[in-house]
Amino acid sequence: MRIGIYGYGNLGRGVEKALAKNPDAELVGVFTRRNPETVKTVTGAPVYAAERATEFEGQIDVMILCGGSATDLPEMTPQMVRHFNVVDSFDTHARIPEHFQKVDEEALRTAHTALISGGWDPGLFSLARLYMNIALPDGRDYTFWGRGVSQGHSDAIRRIPGVRDARQYTVPIAEAVERVRAGEMPELSTREKHLRECYVVAEEGADRDEIEKTIKEMPNYFADYDTTVTFITEEELKRNHSALPHGGQVIRSGKTSEANGHVMEFSLKLDSNPEFTGSVLLACARAVAKNYARENYGCMTLFDVAPADLSPLSSEELRAHML
Amino acid sequence: MRIGIYGYGNLGRGVEKALAKNPDAELVGVFTRRNPETVKTVTGAPVYAAERATEFEGQIDVMILCGGSATDLPEMTPQMVRHFNVVDSFDTHARIPEHFQKVDEEALRTAHTALISGGWDPGLFSLARLYMNIALPDGRDYTFWGRGVSQGHSDAIRRIPGVRDARQYTVPIAEAVERVRAGEMPELSTREKHLRECYVVAEEGADRDEIEKTIKEMPNYFADYDTTVTFITEEELKRNHSALPHGGQVIRSGKTSEANGHVMEFSLKLDSNPEFTGSVLLACARAVAKNYARENYGCMTLFDVAPADLSPLSSEELRAHML
Repeated sequence: MRIGIYGYGNLGRGVEKALAKNPDAELVGVFTRRNPETVKTVTGAPVYAAERATEFEGQIDVMILCGGSATDLPEMTPQMVRHFNVVDSFDTHARIPEHFQKVDEEALRTAHTALISGGWDPGLFSLARLYMNIALPDGRDYTFWGRGVSQGHSDAIRRIPGVRDARQYTVPIAEAVERVRAGEMPELSTREKHLRECYVVAEEGADRDEIEKTIKEMPNYFADYDTTVTFITEEELKRNHSALPHGGQVIRSGKTSEANGHVMEFSLKLDSNPEFTGSVLLACARAVAKNYARENYGCMTLFDVAPADLSPLSSEELRAHML
Repeated sequence: MRIGIYGYGNLGRGVEKALAKNPDAELVGVFTRRNPETVKTVTGAPVYAAERATEFEGQIDVMILCGGSATDLPEMTPQMVRHFNVVDSFDTHARIPEHFQKVDEEALRTAHTALISGGWDPGLFSLARLYMNIALPDGRDYTFWGRGVSQGHSDAIRRIPGVRDARQYTVPIAEAVERVRAGEMPELSTREKHLRECYVVAEEGADRDEIEKTIKEMPNYFADYDTTVTFITEEELKRNHSALPHGGQVIRSGKTSEANGHVMEFSLKLDSNPEFTGSVLLACARAVAKNYARENYGCMTLFDVAPADLSPLSSEELRAHML
């Protein structure tokens, strides 16, 4: 399958690296809104201006959209699906129904296939929640994230006056995880589930107390959490905090009868969030290509995809070796 | 959906209990090869002789086949699918392709839908392996089972002369699990992955040394493992070993680039293997009923089922609440 990468940040590079591990896929090109001459790809793949993408209609089987969920994808996915089969990693949970509907309409109108919200959350974690719910309908599930870098929270800190750079780690609270794992089904507040650790590089002469206060009191992002703020130098940030690890777990416990309880858990420990997400998106592109070949048009999510469609192996091989 | 349970041992009772947790399903009846008058169901569901099952054609949407994989299901599933949509938990991994083909032929010929090898291994563990492989194509996966009762190994001990009863626990070796979890990708022999613990009730006057030797040297079942044999009384067996716990984990580690590795894990801790398996089979029945309604006939496995089809929720509800 012939792949295009639309948007070339961390995630775009992750998809590009994933291509080396998936011999059934080849990269046609990277499309960027920056000046293509200033963009150097990891593997030397050709770079084109985003406006030229439509010239590649018919030469790309699936375009993987690597924009952000806040402002890029809500416009980009419904627009690009008019020309290509597409995959995105739209992760604003509350706006998924609306995004799905827009993409579905355009995909059906133009006879294309789209998969939105691929990746790990939404994505593999969503699948874990669904499979756990069907196996244990009488139960309760919990999602913990981290220890990992939250891009959104890091950005929120960077917007504070006097902050030069910042990195925010979301940290699950071990005691809460253990209680859930033990099948206790506790009632947990936001504060009891995760901590937020902030590493901040301040501008020279900035009021550090004021920055710390602004972070800790920021509504939605930090106010509901126990938050630590540590000021570090730019060198320390580069040396110790330039990786983008992440992960977490979905845990569900429940009962099948008065006597018998069960605990299910799916966990990820990722050295690089964008590389792992990129790898999942490439598998999603495979499912999109297969469904398009069956004239199964419209928008789907991983909930609608038969797992076999994500694999390069045939159904016979899967039954023989993986079942 | 109207459900029939065909075969009424531990698994059949597990399915029956699962019905209480799935309000979209109702139980039409239990079918047994024993004298129906001697069978008392957990919930008071009616019991019929197995030969009478075909009288219920048209009154049962999905028949859940709760026979054993060694001798029952290879005959039972291809035969029953001529009359009903069916689900089974066929778990002889090596014979799955052959079983699939037989069931598929009969299902297509008679316009029915079947799902084979439902449950957790094969089943949810197979799904975990597949999703992990598509996310991390360059990696290695490991499956550990237990601590849990293996019915097959317990039966093998019971067939030894001088043994009145026995219970065998498969126990994963913690050190091996930890090495895999750490992303080491070790080469592990059979002996390095699992222990086998046997609790045996001997007949009076039986030669215990001979029994222990026979167990430990039994090819396939025990010879390749470190096996412990503990003789206990019938009372102890009843008191301490009458539950059927099980579980285990699938772990895959791999790399997306030279620099970045990842570890994925899916684990189950089950108080009752048959109740949990029964609950998964009931969800499989839901997917079978949906696919039958779409005239999607033939045999499938969980690899072929869109996850949404396993859920009683609509696609809209799933996207809004679980993605």
